[in-house]
Amino acid sequence: MKLLASLTLAAVVSTLALPVMAQFQKPEDAIKYRKSVMTVQAAHFGRIGAMVNGRVPYDAKVVADNAAIVETMSKLPWSAFGPGTDKGETRALPAIWTEQAKFKEGADKMQSEVAKLSAASKTGNLDAVKTAFGAIGQSCKACHDDFQQKQ
Amino acid sequence: MKLLASLTLAAVVSTLALPVMAQFQKPEDAIKYRKSVMTVQAAHFGRIGAMVNGRVPYDAKVVADNAAIVETMSKLPWSAFGPGTDKGETRALPAIWTEQAKFKEGADKMQSEVAKLSAASKTGNLDAVKTAFGAIGQSCKACHDDFQQKQ
Repeated sequence: MKLLASLTLAAVVSTLALPVMAQFQKPEDAIKYRKSVMTVQAAHFGRIGAMVNGRVPYDAKVVADNAAIVETMSKLPWSAFGPGTDKGETRALPAIWTEQAKFKEGADKMQSEVAKLSAASKTGNLDAVKTAFGAIGQSCKACHDDFQQKQ
Repeated sequence: MKLLASLTLAAVVSTLALPVMAQFQKPEDAIKYRKSVMTVQAAHFGRIGAMVNGRVPYDAKVVADNAAIVETMSKLPWSAFGPGTDKGETRALPAIWTEQAKFKEGADKMQSEVAKLSAASKTGNLDAVKTAFGAIGQSCKACHDDFQQKQ
């Protein structure tokens, strides 16, 4: 059972490691990239939030456009958490690498919630958007609580 | 003629200004956002470049996937060049705001070249991808030469 767990972890690590080796020349490039992805994602998620929270009048097209960008971004950061990217200008906690299966589970959960927001945004139903938006917020928080150093 | 130019400039400025006011709370948020967009865009453009330049074996799906991300990103940074975002952690030159029509022309040119890359990537024809890739590179360089401080 322990061997199986080790093999599974090794498979997860190598899956995460390969794209990083191929895609980033230096660990700091990967760190800068994943932080940039999060910045862009947060900006567009926030624009939906402004409508969900009633600070800005609801506009179904704006929500759908922003949800599409969030969906694109939600798929990107994960390959940038490869070996060697745990040090430097990053708030990433060691748990990302010591609890890879849990980290991957959180990443997958977030992406599936974002896909639901994207689908909801196409219906034009604000209540459906609100529900999906809230679920994403919870999945963001869960991962950040476990895997990101507090500021 | 001078009045017409002033009116045109005013229209361009207010078009650019409105989204910024709505989308970013502070000028530094807009600066961080547009730099993040450029970082993500450059990473994915670079992955296509690796295949165009033969450093990585050509894979039509990888090119198409990356071109789609570049296309999404190519539309984003422009609203983040609003008033007040000329100072701070930025290499943006004053010409962006004093020559707005030229800046917009460069931005439009880049987006139309990126759309061509996206179309070319779907054909699976590497030569078409190479041509479109080169044109984007030129449009990046033209804008950076005119509007970005040298490092």
